[in-house]
Amino acid sequence: MDSSSRPDPVSLSLGELAVRFGCELRGDPDLRVERVAPLAEADARSVSFLANPRYRSQLRSTRAGAVIVGADHAEDVPGAALVAARPYVTFARVAAALHPAPSAEPGIHPTAVVDPLAVVDPTAHVGALAVIGARCRVGPRAFIGPGCMLEADVHVTEDVRLVARVTLCRDVHVGARTIVQPGAVIGGDGFGFARDRAGWVKVPQVGGVRIGADVEIGANTTIDRGAMGDTVIGDDVKLDNQIQVAHNVRIGAHTAMAACVGVSGSVTIGERCQIGGAVGIAGHLEICDDVIVTGLSFVSHSIRTPGAYSSGIPIEDAREWRRIVGRLKRIDRLATRVAALERETGRPDQEEQ
Amino acid sequence: MDSSSRPDPVSLSLGELAVRFGCELRGDPDLRVERVAPLAEADARSVSFLANPRYRSQLRSTRAGAVIVGADHAEDVPGAALVAARPYVTFARVAAALHPAPSAEPGIHPTAVVDPLAVVDPTAHVGALAVIGARCRVGPRAFIGPGCMLEADVHVTEDVRLVARVTLCRDVHVGARTIVQPGAVIGGDGFGFARDRAGWVKVPQVGGVRIGADVEIGANTTIDRGAMGDTVIGDDVKLDNQIQVAHNVRIGAHTAMAACVGVSGSVTIGERCQIGGAVGIAGHLEICDDVIVTGLSFVSHSIRTPGAYSSGIPIEDAREWRRIVGRLKRIDRLATRVAALERETGRPDQEEQ
Amino acid sequence: MDSSSRPDPVSLSLGELAVRFGCELRGDPDLRVERVAPLAEADARSVSFLANPRYRSQLRSTRAGAVIVGADHAEDVPGAALVAARPYVTFARVAAALHPAPSAEPGIHPTAVVDPLAVVDPTAHVGALAVIGARCRVGPRAFIGPGCMLEADVHVTEDVRLVARVTLCRDVHVGARTIVQPGAVIGGDGFGFARDRAGWVKVPQVGGVRIGADVEIGANTTIDRGAMGDTVIGDDVKLDNQIQVAHNVRIGAHTAMAACVGVSGSVTIGERCQIGGAVGIAGHLEICDDVIVTGLSFVSHSIRTPGAYSSGIPIEDAREWRRIVGRLKRIDRLATRVAALERETGRPDQEEQ
Repeated sequence: MDSSSRPDPVSLSLGELAVRFGCELRGDPDLRVERVAPLAEADARSVSFLANPRYRSQLRSTRAGAVIVGADHAEDVPGAALVAARPYVTFARVAAALHPAPSAEPGIHPTAVVDPLAVVDPTAHVGALAVIGARCRVGPRAFIGPGCMLEADVHVTEDVRLVARVTLCRDVHVGARTIVQPGAVIGGDGFGFARDRAGWVKVPQVGGVRIGADVEIGANTTIDRGAMGDTVIGDDVKLDNQIQVAHNVRIGAHTAMAACVGVSGSVTIGERCQIGGAVGIAGHLEICDDVIVTGLSFVSHSIRTPGAYSSGIPIEDAREWRRIVGRLKRIDRLATRVAALERETGRPDQEEQ
Repeated sequence: MDSSSRPDPVSLSLGELAVRFGCELRGDPDLRVERVAPLAEADARSVSFLANPRYRSQLRSTRAGAVIVGADHAEDVPGAALVAARPYVTFARVAAALHPAPSAEPGIHPTAVVDPLAVVDPTAHVGALAVIGARCRVGPRAFIGPGCMLEADVHVTEDVRLVARVTLCRDVHVGARTIVQPGAVIGGDGFGFARDRAGWVKVPQVGGVRIGADVEIGANTTIDRGAMGDTVIGDDVKLDNQIQVAHNVRIGAHTAMAACVGVSGSVTIGERCQIGGAVGIAGHLEICDDVIVTGLSFVSHSIRTPGAYSSGIPIEDAREWRRIVGRLKRIDRLATRVAALERETGRPDQEEQ
Repeated sequence: MDSSSRPDPVSLSLGELAVRFGCELRGDPDLRVERVAPLAEADARSVSFLANPRYRSQLRSTRAGAVIVGADHAEDVPGAALVAARPYVTFARVAAALHPAPSAEPGIHPTAVVDPLAVVDPTAHVGALAVIGARCRVGPRAFIGPGCMLEADVHVTEDVRLVARVTLCRDVHVGARTIVQPGAVIGGDGFGFARDRAGWVKVPQVGGVRIGADVEIGANTTIDRGAMGDTVIGDDVKLDNQIQVAHNVRIGAHTAMAACVGVSGSVTIGERCQIGGAVGIAGHLEICDDVIVTGLSFVSHSIRTPGAYSSGIPIEDAREWRRIVGRLKRIDRLATRVAALERETGRPDQEEQ
């Protein structure tokens, strides 16, 4: 396994960080940091950040060597401050500089099984017990982790990282720099059956999957191949773990989905959407650009106006909730009673019949 | 990998299709098609279909060489029409004829690990890096894809297809022609623990799993072994991706479940049911034959009457939804106020106390 | 595969069972049983149990050689009774005695790939096609099943059982006797991205995962590594299948979660909680000890008082449910109408404005 080479610790001065990431430094430019840490756990060799005001109380007592903050909180930092317009973005870049991803030797592990008709770039890494099927192409610097399975006719482009045990079925195309976490399955058959008298008849799923560049796909997420035509994931889409994307779904660039979302077949989702955890989206709908759906909501109709949408119900004391549900189940009767009272008092509601 | 042999393109004349699949042909019987395509993307070498009226507007402008339709839409097809009683069923069969599944060479890949006590039919295919445990039986023409893991005492019967990286734990039986998509786990331990003073005590899960014939099991779906006795999936059951089936569940023939459904332990589901996406079913319930449950519903009690059931709530504008939830949480108070008004006006409700 | 050795059948006398597990025996101490079975399917060589009163009707007609019951049901057992204070706990222990887990030969399968810098205890078992990365430690009697992938710097301690095809990414620590079912992924990257003008910037996930002792982790469950600092699963935590645990979550000892639960990032859950199936928990919340959340509920705020909480809605006839949802969507208007009626009749509600 070439993911074995633990990267050497990196040490950077605050001066270097300020120059490289365009921050204003308030503090000693020669102070060196070598790791990132949360405010409450940071020490003098750590750099931390404040982006969520929820953690502001931890700022004053932090022992971090430096804290990345917006201008409005720079005064409150006890040690050095790296002042940035977008503290969380700057933190992400600083963290990547201090914690580089483990690198992998180019080459094919002797236990990997590579079809003679596959073409693997000499700078790519193919890990232990990976399988690369016929006519696959693996691009420059791609990382195919241990136990990954690529069926035939898969195209993995430059700098893609399949962490471990990823399955790409035939006719899957993965764009540059995309990262796929373990257990993900891309290109399984879509769920297509026609109902005949005797039972179900399988509809062959003959499309493929096209994944854009800079995409992230979470652990155990599944993306089905198209029934006809492709399932398409746009550039810079971020999918968390255990998401289900059905056949012929199209997801626009920069859209992010939290874990456990289920997207039914032939749904089209726009760009820059944010879909909360465990949201369910019914089939054949369209969601326009810039839509936010909060967690545990049920999208049962198309959304044509940008904005935030919800249908999740927060928990309640269980006994109280049973009473509420009982009332809800009789709400039709309640409305009828109100209408009767209105007639009684001579002021009938306009909407009611 | 023997899934590497890309099938040769198939070309069939409309006359052949009409005879073979019992359609009425309106058009040139010598016209040849070689693929299926959606109405909007089809060309002269493609056959398409219309089953969902939602796509009727695409019918008139399609460039498909032929379209499979019901008699009521035959007039609207601009090119050739294959008129069928059940257009989607006929389309499924035509698609299978034009796009045959990739075939696999019989035999055991040299990197597969097959226990000496296992019996693999000589016509079966065992792919790269598959593991076949002791006393397993693999039937005629079965396809065990790359990376599949069969523990001991698994029985895979004729024409079963385990696509890739499927795990079958011990004492799992898979009926003829069943297809299992990648990442599925069949026969993991059920979730059984007894609460003792010091903590949980694991209840050994000693049952197995019996999967019927003609079943389809989706990617990353999990089906647990029985605690005692078997978990049973009936013939022609179709399970989409990421479904969870707990121990000792029984699912009747021809029932279909969309993705992300969770079925709790010891639930019995009848035949020909259709369970929508992300439905949750509480433990120890019975659902009779011919039940439809729409997506995101919560089945908390047994269903004894065929029909359609729901409890999902469609999304709303987020701010409006917060207001609705606030009102819902006070619905008990609202009902009390209505009862007070009724007493006031001298017409108390019968149900209310 | 060393899981191949099918354990020899075990036969124990009721007298032995009574002594070993501290039950009162009512029946023949020399009668021997050799398996467990449900009341309805048990024969004279089987021991069964009654814990759920739902199955009481099956007790009188059972053919079980012996039944483990509480004192209150001992009279109703037709054959021998093993009377126990906690029948289900005693049953779990009896079942483990009669059905010992298959044992595995110590040693490393010749097809496993073990990094030279890894240390595997000579009493541990490493199965076929497993991968053990650099600097991993595998403790005494640990079982690493076929197809498991351990990245670098993973520590698996004594008597851990990774059933098959489990992925442990770098810097994961697994406590003693913990069991992980197939398909689970522990230590995938958390879902952390900062939004920049041009798109998302990945926040490196540099923490690890610490799993306690006596934990069970279900099939295809995912537990992400910490962003900074570790994700922590306490001792004796039981997680069912297809659960998603995001980065930096902390779950207290003895807490159990049913399948399909989603826990968002940085949530802290107390000890002895019971989380029902498909519950969703929003990010950065705290749930105190001894909380029960019923299935399909949405935890959107912290819980500071032990007790039971719900927000799931049971199914209804689909047409009736549509009417209810229509009314619910207009509940704000309904409340306004009631307030108007109250003003009309001269008794305005205190809460309403």
